This record gives sequence, C-alpha cells and structure tokens, in this order.
Amino acid sequence: MKAAQGTDRTTDEAEIRAIIEDYGEGLRNKDADRCVSHYADDVVQFDLAPPLENRGKETARQNLAEWFKTFDGPIGVEITGLKILAGTDAAFAYCMNHISGTSKQGQKNDHWVRVTIGFQRTEGKWLVDHEHVSVPFYMDGSFRAALDLTP
Amino acid sequence: MKAAQGTDRTTDEAEIRAIIEDYGEGLRNKDADRCVSHYADDVVQFDLAPPLENRGKETARQNLAEWFKTFDGPIGVEITGLKILAGTDAAFAYCMNHISGTSKQGQKNDHWVRVTIGFQRTEGKWLVDHEHVSVPFYMDGSFRAALDLTP
Repeated sequence: MKAAQGTDRTTDEAEIRAIIEDYGEGLRNKDADRCVSHYADDVVQFDLAPPLENRGKETARQNLAEWFKTFDGPIGVEITGLKILAGTDAAFAYCMNHISGTSKQGQKNDHWVRVTIGFQRTEGKWLVDHEHVSVPFYMDGSFRAALDLTP
Repeated sequence: MKAAQGTDRTTDEAEIRAIIEDYGEGLRNKDADRCVSHYADDVVQFDLAPPLENRGKETARQNLAEWFKTFDGPIGVEITGLKILAGTDAAFAYCMNHISGTSKQGQKNDHWVRVTIGFQRTEGKWLVDHEHVSVPFYMDGSFRAALDLTP
C-alpha cells in the first residue's frame, strides 16, 4: 500500500532532518523565533541549566534569547551523528552537537552536548514536543559537568 | 479503519508503559538482565556518567551491574510524569525518576533524574533504541551537577 503524502517514512525523516538543520541555523543566527517555530506550544524541555524541566514555547523563546545574549560574536553549531526514527505521527531523533563561541566575559566555549528530540505530527506538520539536552557529570566526587568530552 | 493488532496507539502506549514499569522493577531488584531485555542490541545511551555515549546491550548490562554493586541494600525508583507518544514502529517517552538508596560507603543517594527513551518496534516487539538520562548543572561558575533539584 502506497502511503499518503507525508506519511512515508523516508519523507518524514527528511522533513525532520530539515527541521533540525533549520533549528541549527536559528542558533547560529541567534534567531530565537526561528528556533521555536519548530516547537509545539506545550513543548517540555530538559535543558543544560536548572530547573529540571521547562514547559512551553514562550519559556523556550525567552531562554534562547537570554542564552544568545551571553555570546560575544557568532555561535558555532555542528550537528553530528544524527539518527532519526520516524513512525506515523511520532518520531524521535538524537545527535551530538558541538557548540562553540566566546562569552561576553571573553571565555572560550567549546563543548559537546547530547541532544534527544521527540516529534509529534499535528495537522500534517512535525513539531518538537520534547527536547533533552545534557552533558554527563564526573563521578569522581567532584560532580562537575563533563564539558571537556569529545565524541 | 481498524488498526491491526499491536498497531493501535492506545495498545502501543500501554505496551510501552508496561516496559518502562518492568524496567523500573528490574532496577529495584538489581536485575540487569531484566532491564536490558527491553533494549535493542545496538541501543545508544546518553547516561549520567561519562563517556558522552555508550553503545550496545552488553555495555548497558555491564554498566547496570556495576552501578547496582555501588548500593548497600535496596534501590528506590519512583517514575513520575510519564508521557508516551507512540506512532507506528517509532515512539518516545519521557519522565522524571526519583532514585534513592544508600551507597556501600554509607552515603545517602536521593535525587531526581530526567529520562527520555526512544522506542522502535521490530518484528512486533517494542525495544529501547535510545535512552537519555541526565541532571542539569549549575551555571554559577561551579559547573556542579544539580543533584538536589526536585520536580
């Protein structure tokens, strides 16, 4: 049976890949609106910084805008190892992102983060329903975030 | 159109919920085999501890067995806020888990972790293809893992 347009797995994976790439461009261009255009209104985010979770597209937009302000100059975003698994109306993807740049305080940022994204298709459009971004932490008693790891 | 058995969304979500509950029971019983019985052979895990990722069911089994050994007595696992989104052959779920227990060194463990799980259905069976477990870290200059947060 030929699947209807937009329900083919290859098409879905291509659509999701395009969303992730566009989101990356949004980050590089410090364009919070572009990034959150891919979020569902009730997106649930597990982010690098506390709290444990953030809810809602508007919170996401504000947090991105605040984060962008901490950079002096461009943000480098390299998306690697992207794997996408799409089913009908639900999909997930994960990748390892290399984030680089210089903070307003002149500190060099250069670290790799793990990213997992859950997608839901609503009215024919794939939206990010859930996002989880993290680094591990050292279990040597320091409990320090492992920001120096590379894949 | 009536979906075929096992392809109904409610059935899928119930199957996935049962897997997550059984996995939790595996943790409580320190039964690594029971936990990893739900993993795909090529599962990719983003875990609390370095490295950035672990690959494969056997690595997962060994890491769980090592982790269980660090506990003196039972491990408490409370799964909260579970949300499941199932499509045909792909699904994702996320929740906030409360982990508690006492280490062999007598240290009390009591913390909340964020969990995201990606599922793939292969030959009619849902398996964990991807798992992401983390805590955020403090951006106050300490870079310490935020193990004291509650939902």
